Order: sequence, then structure tokens, then C-alpha cells
Amino acid sequence: MAEPAETRTRTAAHLEALTQALETGTLRRVARMLNALPPAEIARLLESLPPPQRAVVWELVDESYDGDVLAELNDEVRATLLEDMEAEEVVAALEGLDPDDLADILQDLPDTVIRQVLASMDQENRRRLEAVLSYPEDTAGGLMNTDTVTVRADVTLDVVLRYLRMRGEIPELTDSLFVVDRNGRYLGVLPLTALLTRDPILTVAEVMEREPEGIPATTPATEVAQLFQHRDLVSAAVVDERGRLLGRITVDDVVDVIREEADQALLSMAGLDEEDDMFAPVPVSYRRRALWLGVNLATAFLASWVVGLFQDTIDQVVALAVLMPIVASMGGIAGSQTLTLAIRGIALGQVSSANAAWLLTKELLVGLLNGMTWAVVVGLIAWFWFDNTQIAAVIAAAIIINLICAAFAGLTIPLALRRMGIDPALAGSMALTTVTDVVGFFAFLGLASLYLA
Amino acid sequence: MAEPAETRTRTAAHLEALTQALETGTLRRVARMLNALPPAEIARLLESLPPPQRAVVWELVDESYDGDVLAELNDEVRATLLEDMEAEEVVAALEGLDPDDLADILQDLPDTVIRQVLASMDQENRRRLEAVLSYPEDTAGGLMNTDTVTVRADVTLDVVLRYLRMRGEIPELTDSLFVVDRNGRYLGVLPLTALLTRDPILTVAEVMEREPEGIPATTPATEVAQLFQHRDLVSAAVVDERGRLLGRITVDDVVDVIREEADQALLSMAGLDEEDDMFAPVPVSYRRRALWLGVNLATAFLASWVVGLFQDTIDQVVALAVLMPIVASMGGIAGSQTLTLAIRGIALGQVSSANAAWLLTKELLVGLLNGMTWAVVVGLIAWFWFDNTQIAAVIAAAIIINLICAAFAGLTIPLALRRMGIDPALAGSMALTTVTDVVGFFAFLGLASLYLA
Repeated sequence: MAEPAETRTRTAAHLEALTQALETGTLRRVARMLNALPPAEIARLLESLPPPQRAVVWELVDESYDGDVLAELNDEVRATLLEDMEAEEVVAALEGLDPDDLADILQDLPDTVIRQVLASMDQENRRRLEAVLSYPEDTAGGLMNTDTVTVRADVTLDVVLRYLRMRGEIPELTDSLFVVDRNGRYLGVLPLTALLTRDPILTVAEVMEREPEGIPATTPATEVAQLFQHRDLVSAAVVDERGRLLGRITVDDVVDVIREEADQALLSMAGLDEEDDMFAPVPVSYRRRALWLGVNLATAFLASWVVGLFQDTIDQVVALAVLMPIVASMGGIAGSQTLTLAIRGIALGQVSSANAAWLLTKELLVGLLNGMTWAVVVGLIAWFWFDNTQIAAVIAAAIIINLICAAFAGLTIPLALRRMGIDPALAGSMALTTVTDVVGFFAFLGLASLYLA
Repeated sequence: MAEPAETRTRTAAHLEALTQALETGTLRRVARMLNALPPAEIARLLESLPPPQRAVVWELVDESYDGDVLAELNDEVRATLLEDMEAEEVVAALEGLDPDDLADILQDLPDTVIRQVLASMDQENRRRLEAVLSYPEDTAGGLMNTDTVTVRADVTLDVVLRYLRMRGEIPELTDSLFVVDRNGRYLGVLPLTALLTRDPILTVAEVMEREPEGIPATTPATEVAQLFQHRDLVSAAVVDERGRLLGRITVDDVVDVIREEADQALLSMAGLDEEDDMFAPVPVSYRRRALWLGVNLATAFLASWVVGLFQDTIDQVVALAVLMPIVASMGGIAGSQTLTLAIRGIALGQVSSANAAWLLTKELLVGLLNGMTWAVVVGLIAWFWFDNTQIAAVIAAAIIINLICAAFAGLTIPLALRRMGIDPALAGSMALTTVTDVVGFFAFLGLASLYLA
């Protein structure tokens, strides 16, 4: 997401044009501009508008785009728009959507509307939707569509070519046809490029590729994303436990998974959620943020309690109060570097028990070296500032202790959280700060109480 | 990147199997396992190994994979592997790589090796490489490959079909052919699916799609990524300033851009870099981290200096030293929530001057409400703890002030940094903490000095 500052993203440019047009009230121009954009970009713009403007712009979106735009919106923004729509409007908007998108949206709707949507579908489409709905949203089954084009292994390419021409239409993002046997079991893929270049008298069996294997429907979305990245796939088959073809996943949905997961790691480190509306009403945001602040307050009081243990010492040497934030701050920063590396490494599968020992040794050594470096610097500054060598020695020792503990906590906390089934990105940062604050204050004030008071 | 804790990614599973095999010394098994994986996954595994094991495993990678694996590795890990290779090995490994990957790798090589690589290429490939090398790595030109298949608009589909069959091969990830005029100007795309389903007597001009437009070679990679996401593209044409076809970008490279950008945002908030080797030698990591800690130390001393201004007050009321970390901590957490939202919104183009005023009002209100909530809580606790209503009142007021300032700083700092051409993710977090520490200590101790001392 980082980018050179001088570039202006398309979305930002469109957002500014849109806002200007809204302000001058030239709604017809807004509508024209808007409906020339792809649905995904309309969705990004709607997410970027405050609710009053959002409602206006949503009205201007061409009705035939409504479904695709809804599918691209984040959960919370979508829910607010759906709330204000009549049931008939919703049913009309959702018509013709892919089953995976439809399955996502249905979960936000009241039961009465769901029934109306289901009633409006033909049997074939209802059956497809139910197939997708039977898997959790974040699995291969939840990501799949059922618009596969299948062929048998024993026919010739010439037959396939004539079949496609008769069919007259191939779904978007189809780079290969799926080869199945008579029981619907997935056997492999027939790339369109092979179909176009190989001799038409060859049979599908002679030309097809047996790789990649079908993806079991229960495979987590994260793993599907890794598979697509590692093998540069455009589409892949989803199979049931008996190897029968259920549907296919296309790269556009995988790209969304990758972006959302990466965003989620960034946001959850601050206790936020990728599906939240940036422009949610103040009371909603207030309650969400309050929760996170409340958890932090508990940990902050823990650190404060540690300081409280040494009130007498501080009373005698007030310079300790002045210097103590530095010990905590340096530990927090050093620890968060190790923590961030660990969180990313764990999510990508690059940090695990296999290399944890090696990494820990390295991080502890880096912590020790940095601890010694900054202990000297801070010690010297403290010495000149307060003209007291004992304070200088105590803060130097405390910084070394805290940076080593920070390295240890920065790596072991996320690994432990993961083992406990807690998202390291969500809880790691606050747990780490608690450790570095408590250790920092305890080491600094504790040593001071021994040698200074 | 966040994922349910109970799932184990493929990479993590492979990493553990690999480490076990290495420990038991069954190198032949390691080699067999390794060379069955796609190059991108081999690269992830090499990145996840400590240097001694990495060197062993790299030797086991089949030589014919070397180039593709190098292309997938992060910059620093690649550089360490290249260092230990003979020039001839490097030349052999790089043979047959796509120009975009080759261009990336060449930048890490010494001039003598670059000359050898260029000398080993035929004129056609050298010309292609030079085309890619003439654009920065993070632009459409730097991402492109030159393996386009082009057709003219005035021929029939039947002629195109015969041409492809004669050609015998179509590059990977080709979903459409590019239509160009006699001067090489890009006119549009002919999807393979259209080629397979439309009547062969139609001309290309009758069937081709004029969307999407060609991407100018100087377009930033970030914008290319947005375009692919918004339009669900598999490949897109890259054109020069006169609209002539230069090459094409494929979705696999775009997926890498998206993942790397998102990772970079997460890592740069902790002063880290996506291209760094997690297992870099201790001295290298030490120096890198030291820089970040040094910057933090300067800001920590600023906060410490503010506390120093009020030494006399603390000397009289030592409870202030106990409570002051709480004011700073609450401000830091509240501010980092606003900051994270802003950093992500700016990167996606969803936060700009068009909606900044609305967002600021919202964030200030949320800050005010949370400030009041936690002011009451902290005030009550402080009152019971120290049995002093004045301290309670002062800390309550300081928390409200700091949370409002935190909301203001959390949004304006990243916007200002961006305007100054500085990456908000890199500098935002430290700048924010400086503000919330300084304001927190100043408000709390300043009020205390007025009403308590």
C-alpha cells in the first residue's frame, strides 16, 4: 500500500472530481462519470464518501450495476445501503450475480428478503447457490463459482472446438476447460491455448494437464491464495471429498483475498477491522474504539502499578520520573520491530517452530547489541543532564535488560498467541507493550531503589 | 495475512518437513521434495531458512529452476545467494528468464557479470531486455514482458486461428491477443474466448474489444495494481507515449505488487523493509534497527524534557509520576487507531482532501466521546487510589485533551507527510507518539502544576 508520495491514485483523483461535482450540484455529470467506471471502483468511491453524499451517489448508480457494486463493497457499507432499499429493489439488484458474491451478500439480509431472492431464482441457480452457501465464506467452497465448462477426456479437440462454438459463450476469466469423467470426477485441465495450438485430431486425454490438482472445498482461503501465487494460476478447480468437480475459483477473487488479508493484519494491530466503514456513525465508532482503549487501560494501569511500587524512590530522586519514559519507549520500539517481523512471518508460514530457535538467538543478539549501544548514549545524556553517574549507570543497565526482554517477547508472544488460537496481529502489540512497560519500569526503578535510595 | 490459528499454511508445513529432513541428513529426500515444488514456493522456503541451511538447500535446487527461484526471492536474500555463485553459473541460471524478472535481478549484479549476461543473449532478447530496463522497476514499463502475440484488425478469425496453430505456442497467462495497426499502435484486444466462440469468417475488427485502453509505460505500479483489481484483468497491454504496443503485464506480477505493497505498509510502520532478509547477519540487522531506535530516542527525550519541566511539581506530588504513563498510553493508542485508518485510506486513494474535513470532524467527536468516557474511569480509579479529588480532576482533563489531540494528529500527520513526499507509514507512527507523549505529559503535569502544587 505504500507508494511514492507524488503519485495520485486513480481512486483519489475520481474521488476529488466526484466531490467537486456533488458540491456544485451537477448530478447528471456525476452520474455520467460514475457509470463509466467499473463496479469495483464505484464501490471504492462509495466507501470513501460520508453517508449523506454516499446516499446521493448510490441513487445515481445505474440500476444494472447495483448488484456488482454491492458485491464489491465492504460488509458494513453494504449493510447500510441494503437497509435503505426496498425488498423488491434488492431482489432486482441481486439478479444475475455470481453465486459466490450472492452467498456473501445474503448473509447480511433479513430472512424475508432472502426468501424472496431464493424464490426469484430458477431451480438450477438455486441449486448452485446452495452449493456455495454450504461452505464457510473463507474456504475454497465459499470462494468458488459454479460456471465451469467441462469436457470428457475421450473426445477429440475438434469436438471440443465445435462444442464451444455451438455453446457461443465462455464465462469470464476462463483460461482452461475442466476435464471430468462420467461420474463428474475432476481429472485435469485443458488450457484454451492448447486447444488453439495443438492438432485437432488429438484427444483431450492426450493434451490435457493433470496439474494443478483439484482444490478440496474445505481448503482455507489463505491457502488457496498461496496456491494461486505459487503457481501463477488464473483459475482452479474445486472438488468435493470424493474428487468430484464442484466449481472453480478465479484469480480476481483470490486477489481480493490477498489484499484483504494484508489489510486486516495492518488494521488489527490497531484493533480495527477491514470490514468496518470508515464513515460509520460516531456512536458506532466510539463503541468499537472504546473497547480497545479499555483493554489498553488495564495494561497501562499494570505499568502504573509497577511505578507505584517505587513511589518512595521517586520521591527521593525525582530525575527517575523524568527518565523512566525513555526506558519504556526504547523497549516498546525494539520489541515492535521483532513483533512485526514475527507476525508477518507467521502469516506467510515463514516463521514456525522449525526456525524459531535460530530467529530467537538472532533477535536476542540484535537486542543485546542495540541495548549496549543505546545504553551508552542514554547513560551519557543522563549523566550530563543530572550530573549523577549512578543514575546514568542504572538507566544504562535498565535499557539493556529491557531491549533483551523486548526481543524475547517480540518473538515468543506471537508464537504463543498463535498456539492459543488468537490472532497475533490483534493481541500481539498490546501484550508486547505491557511487557516492555512493566519490565522497563521495574528494571529501572528497581535498580534505582537498590543503588540510589 | 491474518488467518484462523488452527490452519497451518502449506509453506509452514513444507518448512517443517524440510528442516526435519535437513537435520536427519537425508539430502536426497530434501532435493526430491524441493524440486517437486513450484519456484515461488522454493523461494519462500529459502527465505525462511537460516543462512547455513539456506546455502545447503540452494545447492540442492535443480539448476534448471535456479533462474525462476532467483526471480521470486526478495532482494536481499537473492543478493546473498548471487554473491556465492560463479559468473558462469549466474549466466546459465538467468538464461531464458522473462525480461521483467531479468531486469530486476541484473540490478543486483556486478558490471562484469551484467556484461557477460548481455553477451550471452541474442540480439532480439537483448533488445527486449533493454526496453524493460529503460523504465523504473515500479512502473508499468518495469513490470512488463515483451512476449505479446499480436494480430491485425483486418484479418478474419480464421486466419488468426491458422496463424496460432502454425505458431504452435502461446505464452503463459495469455487470455487475449493484442490488435495493432501497421505502425504497431495498440488498438484493442481479441479475447481467446471470442476466438473460440465467434464465427471464423468475422474479421478481428468486428470481434475485438477496445477496452481496456493500453497502459502508458510510465504508470506507477500501484495504479496498475488498482486497474487490474477494478477490472478483473488477466493481462493488459503496455504502450509508449505514442500509443505503440511495448509489451504486456500479467496478473501474476500484479499479485506480487499487491502483496508486497500491503506488506511494506505493515513493515514500514515498524521501520522495517519488505526486501530485507529475516535471517540477515546480526551486524546488518543491528545497524538497521539501531537507526530506527536512534530516531525514537530523540523523540523520547523530547517527551522526557517535557516531564523535566515539571520536576518540582512531581517532587511535591509523587503520584503524578505514577499516573503519567497512563495519559500518554491512552493518547498513543487512540491516535494510532486514527493513524492506521488514515495510512490505509491514503494508500488506497480513499482518504484525500475531498473527505478529510468530514473525517476529521468524525474522529474529533469519537476522540471527545472516548476522552470523556475514559476520563471518568481513570479519574475514579485515581481518586480511590490516591484519595485526592484534585489529582482525579487533573488526570481526567488531561485524558480528554490528549485524546482530542491524538485524533487531530492521527489524521493530519499522515496527510501532511504525504504532501511533503514522505511515506506516512514510515514516519507517521513515531511522529504521532511524539505528539501524544508531549501533549499528554504537558497537559497532565502542566495542569497539576497549576492546581496541585
